[in-house]
Amino acid sequence: MDRDNRVESLSEEECLHLLGTVPVGRVVYTAHALPAVLPVAFEVTADGRLVLALRQGVTVRRALDDTVAAFQADALDAATRTGWSVLVHGRAQVVSDPALRERLLRTGPRPWEDGAGAAEPMFVLILPELVSGERQLPLGRSLLKS
Amino acid sequence: MDRDNRVESLSEEECLHLLGTVPVGRVVYTAHALPAVLPVAFEVTADGRLVLALRQGVTVRRALDDTVAAFQADALDAATRTGWSVLVHGRAQVVSDPALRERLLRTGPRPWEDGAGAAEPMFVLILPELVSGERQLPLGRSLLKS
Repeated sequence: MDRDNRVESLSEEECLHLLGTVPVGRVVYTAHALPAVLPVAFEVTADGRLVLALRQGVTVRRALDDTVAAFQADALDAATRTGWSVLVHGRAQVVSDPALRERLLRTGPRPWEDGAGAAEPMFVLILPELVSGERQLPLGRSLLKS
Repeated sequence: MDRDNRVESLSEEECLHLLGTVPVGRVVYTAHALPAVLPVAFEVTADGRLVLALRQGVTVRRALDDTVAAFQADALDAATRTGWSVLVHGRAQVVSDPALRERLLRTGPRPWEDGAGAAEPMFVLILPELVSGERQLPLGRSLLKS
């Protein structure tokens, strides 16, 4: 580890807490054999799952459903070069249960690209299996007291 | 296409222009057989390549060098739900040429996690082969004049 390393690893608890503070993250999926990255609105549920809200009909559905997905979110301040980034891996499932879907339509996140006449939202649940994150401290603040 | 779709596809030229307006993007690579996403400082060169600046020694080096990498950047405004997202695929190469490296150390992007005592920067060039992007327009503004 560098003596003046400004980068601090985050616990899983801290990561999930930080995820709850931002409205949009990025889901990674495979399209045409290449990794694709899509910004999506999301929320963290009380039991620590991620609920993503997307528009119906995007090819993401087939690419995400029942796969291990990667989801990333961050909050970075270019002026101070501080911030955090969290990466989650977990099984993704498109919500098909009518009751849960109905509840999410009322109380869940709204797709980022929502607009008048937009297609119905699709919800994807991710159960985090691997959670990792880093926080970048302000310049000059060393993690080590030595 | 939805009649009231607020999402507009961007040309490659627009995408590269927008990429030049933000200091940080996210590079996708494979780690332990899973997709990983890392925020990195970057710039767009005059000839349309991306220069990423990372800290030396990260496992990213082996994962990125001489592979087809995915790189994403966006600027999203949660209040108005507007913004853009651009995705680039292209061959990534760690800069090993001493003269180019020397020049980038003087004039290139500075790694996001730079700090006193931080390891030497590593630069990665990406030559965009596929460039795609979308812009999300303000609510109520339809793309179609009908």
